[in-house]
Amino acid sequence: MFDFTIHASCGAARTGTLRLPHGAVETPVFMPVGTQGTVRALSPGDLKAVGSQLVLANTYHLHVRPGERVVDRLGGLHRFMGWDRPLLTDSGGFQVFSLAGFRRVDDDGVEFQSHVDGGRRHLTPERATEIQWTLGADIAMAFDHVVPGGADETTARDALERTLRWLERCAKRHRELSDGRTVGQSDGQRLPVRPSDGPTVPQTLWPILQGGTHLGLREEGLRRILDLGAWTGLAIGGLSVGEPKPVMYEMLEGLEPRLPPSWPRYLMGVGFPEDLVTAVERGLDLFDCVAPTRNGRNGSAFTPDGPVNIRNAEHRDDARPLDATCDCETCATFSRGYLRHLFVAEELLGLRLLSLHNVRFLIRLTREMGAAIRAGTFPRWAAEWRRRYTRSD
Amino acid sequence: MFDFTIHASCGAARTGTLRLPHGAVETPVFMPVGTQGTVRALSPGDLKAVGSQLVLANTYHLHVRPGERVVDRLGGLHRFMGWDRPLLTDSGGFQVFSLAGFRRVDDDGVEFQSHVDGGRRHLTPERATEIQWTLGADIAMAFDHVVPGGADETTARDALERTLRWLERCAKRHRELSDGRTVGQSDGQRLPVRPSDGPTVPQTLWPILQGGTHLGLREEGLRRILDLGAWTGLAIGGLSVGEPKPVMYEMLEGLEPRLPPSWPRYLMGVGFPEDLVTAVERGLDLFDCVAPTRNGRNGSAFTPDGPVNIRNAEHRDDARPLDATCDCETCATFSRGYLRHLFVAEELLGLRLLSLHNVRFLIRLTREMGAAIRAGTFPRWAAEWRRRYTRSD
Repeated sequence: MFDFTIHASCGAARTGTLRLPHGAVETPVFMPVGTQGTVRALSPGDLKAVGSQLVLANTYHLHVRPGERVVDRLGGLHRFMGWDRPLLTDSGGFQVFSLAGFRRVDDDGVEFQSHVDGGRRHLTPERATEIQWTLGADIAMAFDHVVPGGADETTARDALERTLRWLERCAKRHRELSDGRTVGQSDGQRLPVRPSDGPTVPQTLWPILQGGTHLGLREEGLRRILDLGAWTGLAIGGLSVGEPKPVMYEMLEGLEPRLPPSWPRYLMGVGFPEDLVTAVERGLDLFDCVAPTRNGRNGSAFTPDGPVNIRNAEHRDDARPLDATCDCETCATFSRGYLRHLFVAEELLGLRLLSLHNVRFLIRLTREMGAAIRAGTFPRWAAEWRRRYTRSD
Repeated sequence: MFDFTIHASCGAARTGTLRLPHGAVETPVFMPVGTQGTVRALSPGDLKAVGSQLVLANTYHLHVRPGERVVDRLGGLHRFMGWDRPLLTDSGGFQVFSLAGFRRVDDDGVEFQSHVDGGRRHLTPERATEIQWTLGADIAMAFDHVVPGGADETTARDALERTLRWLERCAKRHRELSDGRTVGQSDGQRLPVRPSDGPTVPQTLWPILQGGTHLGLREEGLRRILDLGAWTGLAIGGLSVGEPKPVMYEMLEGLEPRLPPSWPRYLMGVGFPEDLVTAVERGLDLFDCVAPTRNGRNGSAFTPDGPVNIRNAEHRDDARPLDATCDCETCATFSRGYLRHLFVAEELLGLRLLSLHNVRFLIRLTREMGAAIRAGTFPRWAAEWRRRYTRSD
């Protein structure tokens, strides 16, 4: 369990299989984001239809509403959201540090304000680990301190050190929970075993590498994470948070030779199609982003020829599909003219159909990359893909 | 084509098959309403999954946006909305007379204000017929003058007389179009043949009986519609428009013995589950209503034990399905607690899941009625159904 097998590589790019309690995941893989226990506008059936293998849910949002105790009473996160394939929960760190409102950080944890009711809440590494244990995803993430893209080295160093201290506490609590020890847990209540699967289904915990846009810090952080033990995977956090894209790529390029080759590598919060291609080139394996669903709800669709805004008047009478190369329900069934009508008439179906297509687009993109890696043609494939995607007609 | 075969009856209630160009429809039948060429929050795939046989689309809305010429260029209404089963279009009369805004009626037709851009528009019986011909539904409706539920006899008489005069003009234009004659059409452009099917697919036109809540007027209107020819079906309009429910039932009861037994009977704009049962008892066969989707979007779900408001706090931890007797995706997959979470968290999936269930509920209701009619047990079935549906726990 939690094995990662690499089948082929081409330059730094790799394709492999990650075995998780709820199923195997082929990489590179894009995870749709189910912030509140639902990928916005899509059903679990839709997600399966477009080939989603792994879905991300947000610990912060589910903790605030409906609360992990409710999710627990309704059978755990898998049963709650009707998704029987693998799940990953983030730790809440990103939300706590990026959502607006009151926030006070000390070494114990973070006090913050709920975006739902404005009430004060407190998260510690131990609580974040326990909440994720209760939710019961296949992969839990360590609680981290995220700094904005432009943070200076002192700020980034401070957050990195805190993240590393918190990682040890997360790992300790996660070991206790995995061993069935619940004594001393931080909210003083009996911690429920995960009811959707029973106590025997394992969960793994992945560390998150911080360090801002300072490669030296990132390299040091990586060494110290490796020193802490043999993890089953590694996430790179704190990128795609406002820094220029070339800076993100520079971080990835600098880190790649130092990453343990055999671990799956998860680039958090990325991405757009062009980011996925560039990150796979730099040896990354897992990705998540709200872009396909958020952009879809705004009428923006990914196509091999670049983004299309379906609201544009040019699509009014257009009988062609959104993306002639795509096999999703949206492209197989409906014309651009109809999709434009749905957006102009503010019909709910439009939000769903573009979200569905955009998720399918990213999943097909990861599969095409996997095929090109296996065929040993990834650099040429990537160059051709970029030429078409960025060409303006 | 357009045959209606009655398989069984029980009292006034009947069950039968209506043959239409895009397929056969078993009655009693409930039509989901696709106002703007989409049943709100549901896809064609969803509609098939819940057993929809026939869908209604609104001529007024599609004429105003995107316009029937756009629908025509995109392949006709069936292809436009991705629905290959039978369609029925209303005539626009109801919307023209019930939507807010400027309106001027004379014998030629109605001038009114578009709800989209405020612009002046003009509909005549001929135009309404031509628009529906271009849209290409299996069943088109005659253009009618609808009066509010409380209209006095003089007002109702005036609207009835106008509706009857307009019916003759609709029928004349519909015959011309069916015969391939397009000369003299009212907007001066070449009228397109229906491109989704080619010119050989027939369309039928059904008259609408008006007369307000005045049974004498309704009886006279019915006689005069019968005198005009042998229609393939008959609609009863101008009910469920503000009058008390017992008055609607009284109209249906008074008309039933006078309706030609062999024609399918369509009660427009009805209904709620209890209305469907009562109307089938009074010999009605077809129904449409926005209730299942509109109520679903408001968090109100039909169940055999009466409506449930899923937002209520009592559902927070409830692991049971919305309706334990139901086979829809919503009830097969999700708990009441999860559905409540979706509504409280304002997630789009909630709108869809409750709409889906409510449509399935009405379709299962019509099928259960059909089975009880065939079994000769409809009165007992209806009494038991009502007892359970109206019992307050």
